Amino acid sequence: MISKNISVNEAGHLCFAGQDVCDLAERFGTPLYLLDEDRIRENCRLYKTAFAESFGEKAAPAYASKAASFVHMYRVMREEEMCIDVVSSGEIFTAVKAGFPMERAFFHSNNKTDADILYAMDAGVGYFVVDGEDELVRLSELASARGAVQKILLRVTPGIDPHTYEAVNTGMVDSKFGVAIETGQARELVKLTLTLDGVSLEGVHCHVGSQVFDEDVYQRTADIMLPFLAQMRDEFGFTAKILNFGGGYGVPYVQSDGTVDIRARIGEVAAHMKALCESLSMELPFFVMEPGRSIVADAGLTVYRVGAVKRIPGYKNYVSVDGGMTDNPRYALYGSKYTVLHGDKANEPADFLCDLVGRCCESGDIIQPKICLPASTARGDLVCVCTTGAYNYSMASNYNRIPRPPVVMLRDGGAFEAVRRETFADLTALDL
Amino acid sequence: MISKNISVNEAGHLCFAGQDVCDLAERFGTPLYLLDEDRIRENCRLYKTAFAESFGEKAAPAYASKAASFVHMYRVMREEEMCIDVVSSGEIFTAVKAGFPMERAFFHSNNKTDADILYAMDAGVGYFVVDGEDELVRLSELASARGAVQKILLRVTPGIDPHTYEAVNTGMVDSKFGVAIETGQARELVKLTLTLDGVSLEGVHCHVGSQVFDEDVYQRTADIMLPFLAQMRDEFGFTAKILNFGGGYGVPYVQSDGTVDIRARIGEVAAHMKALCESLSMELPFFVMEPGRSIVADAGLTVYRVGAVKRIPGYKNYVSVDGGMTDNPRYALYGSKYTVLHGDKANEPADFLCDLVGRCCESGDIIQPKICLPASTARGDLVCVCTTGAYNYSMASNYNRIPRPPVVMLRDGGAFEAVRRETFADLTALDL
Repeated sequence: MISKNISVNEAGHLCFAGQDVCDLAERFGTPLYLLDEDRIRENCRLYKTAFAESFGEKAAPAYASKAASFVHMYRVMREEEMCIDVVSSGEIFTAVKAGFPMERAFFHSNNKTDADILYAMDAGVGYFVVDGEDELVRLSELASARGAVQKILLRVTPGIDPHTYEAVNTGMVDSKFGVAIETGQARELVKLTLTLDGVSLEGVHCHVGSQVFDEDVYQRTADIMLPFLAQMRDEFGFTAKILNFGGGYGVPYVQSDGTVDIRARIGEVAAHMKALCESLSMELPFFVMEPGRSIVADAGLTVYRVGAVKRIPGYKNYVSVDGGMTDNPRYALYGSKYTVLHGDKANEPADFLCDLVGRCCESGDIIQPKICLPASTARGDLVCVCTTGAYNYSMASNYNRIPRPPVVMLRDGGAFEAVRRETFADLTALDL
Repeated sequence: MISKNISVNEAGHLCFAGQDVCDLAERFGTPLYLLDEDRIRENCRLYKTAFAESFGEKAAPAYASKAASFVHMYRVMREEEMCIDVVSSGEIFTAVKAGFPMERAFFHSNNKTDADILYAMDAGVGYFVVDGEDELVRLSELASARGAVQKILLRVTPGIDPHTYEAVNTGMVDSKFGVAIETGQARELVKLTLTLDGVSLEGVHCHVGSQVFDEDVYQRTADIMLPFLAQMRDEFGFTAKILNFGGGYGVPYVQSDGTVDIRARIGEVAAHMKALCESLSMELPFFVMEPGRSIVADAGLTVYRVGAVKRIPGYKNYVSVDGGMTDNPRYALYGSKYTVLHGDKANEPADFLCDLVGRCCESGDIIQPKICLPASTARGDLVCVCTTGAYNYSMASNYNRIPRPPVVMLRDGGAFEAVRRETFADLTALDL
């Protein structure tokens, strides 16, 4: 199985987190997002343990909450004593509602409005990750005006190509995010920051991409970032307290993705950074990474009910389900790969080649092309898409006026709704 | 200007439907969807007039409401005496709420659940556009069980390549929609339908794609569909009362798209079809087309406020605004082209080459690359994206926990909210 929380029971039903997906579909309806809360907590602990082992006290993982952002998720992060990365006032609002201690939050975005800046300061957000000069100047003005000093990191672009998918590759110089080291603009921004009131420069942030599988990406990042910090120390007498590398390790969506030994990798990164710091005669700053997908992706499974099976002789076959790009736009957006399993005929040979498509009136509404399901697959059957914990619920839309599925958490053998199913009345709630 | 409802006033501000976008942004905030209701009504009347001129009483345009679906839009369609195409129970719910006479509705979708079928029958939907055998059989069962007879069209795929964008090209044999004429499956489905209780076969539907610019697409469609209907008449004694071609004519997003003389084109299609019917000794069925984009696209304009301008020497420039792929995912999904204009410096030369990007923490959050804005463009300015009436509000998401903008209708020189702005509280309304 693509993920260890997936199994098949004696009835030939797929089980997720040990629970029969047919029972869950019966109880909560379809389409249905399942999230294995135990797995989420395990993933958090994996990062926390690896950080503690390799960096000691001076490191923390921050959950990149855009991967899956709703009130209960921030409760889990609070209980697991994670830091979080938030990217909007909406995420801040949601985290606050969960009682998350906002001093442990890093506030990202390439465009923070005045309203966002004020709202985040009011909420007591620990760190702004300042994306550029426009934001820096405005934050300084707004913080000064209220006599506050906001802790910040500057987001810099190290110019690393992590060889991950282009669409999630954000560390290149040519990025909408941050300021480039290569062009000298990062240096200028550090210099400017040190002259401004209302902001306290605590360190720097960079993000070379998520879904990192390559072995040495973070080492290459360190090779640029640590010398940059040494240069800032030498030129401006600035000592960074925090170094945030963003990102997160890759999660397998299909078997050929392989797996990453996160604990071992973090150990290698730590060793590399410690050696580099020693050669630069600097203390290693507090180290932060921001795994999002890596925390929640394999904790997710989406359950759909089949509505139609279509065989077009000489062309191809289609299996249509009751969800689609509205609850998972990732194939439409990126051509993302997924593993698809039958829900109630999980023991039958899967030799029927078909495209799994959604219910939207749009040709591009494909969940996954060229998958195999049992030849007996028919209207009424359940089909499950694996590894949907990240960027599925969070990217969902009401296209075709389709209500969003509920998010059901699986914990300790039980199941409960963390986000309830959207109703038709909800769809028109804003209509005047 | 790309659309005749766009102009510039003496203050150098962009005007839409004659109204100053700076005033509207001040009043309603940003990001902001503007919809020119007068233009929507004009577009409806253009189709209705052209249909009446060319086909007489026996034709009607149906607004493909997935392009923009909310309560007020169905009120407009009701008042304009349009038919509508709906694709989900959610759209039916919304149309019913607007008091739309549902006997004028065509219900699409490649996957209608049992709940959808029952709901649509309860709502009195005029015509189901049945997508395939699974749905046909189930509809027959459910309608029979309540002693009802549901009027239906069968969706067939004529195998036409309309040379439009691949992602919106749905008339090919290799489609998730409908049943193919070429493979003989359409014939079989007609045959089966005529044996079933609970359904009354009124005609056939096909959809060769939207954004049709090519001159002869509908003629080529007729060349396949009308002989198919003649064959059904000859083989099964079935006379189609309705022939629905789906689709709609192209709308220019950028100047190079050119324009389509819809009235002239419809006249040509009618002449072609009449001649063909005569040669087949058949009466022309009631003719339906389903323009969606063609009705609302150029009635839309999105107003954003700039948050950051970033110049990366030797690389490129970025202008970040307070919306993005959350309110317009079409560039991210399809690489769609848009015309971008400055809102408050509309008279300044636009010679600053930049990418217009959104506020999401995602590299792919690009609204439009390689556009030109005035070199003085700065934080706080307004930037407008034209032709956003179709598939913007309807595809919007809360990715990054960003609230969806309001839809403000412009009518007779006034402005009012048809959909109010989403609040942070709305974002967590379903969270438990």
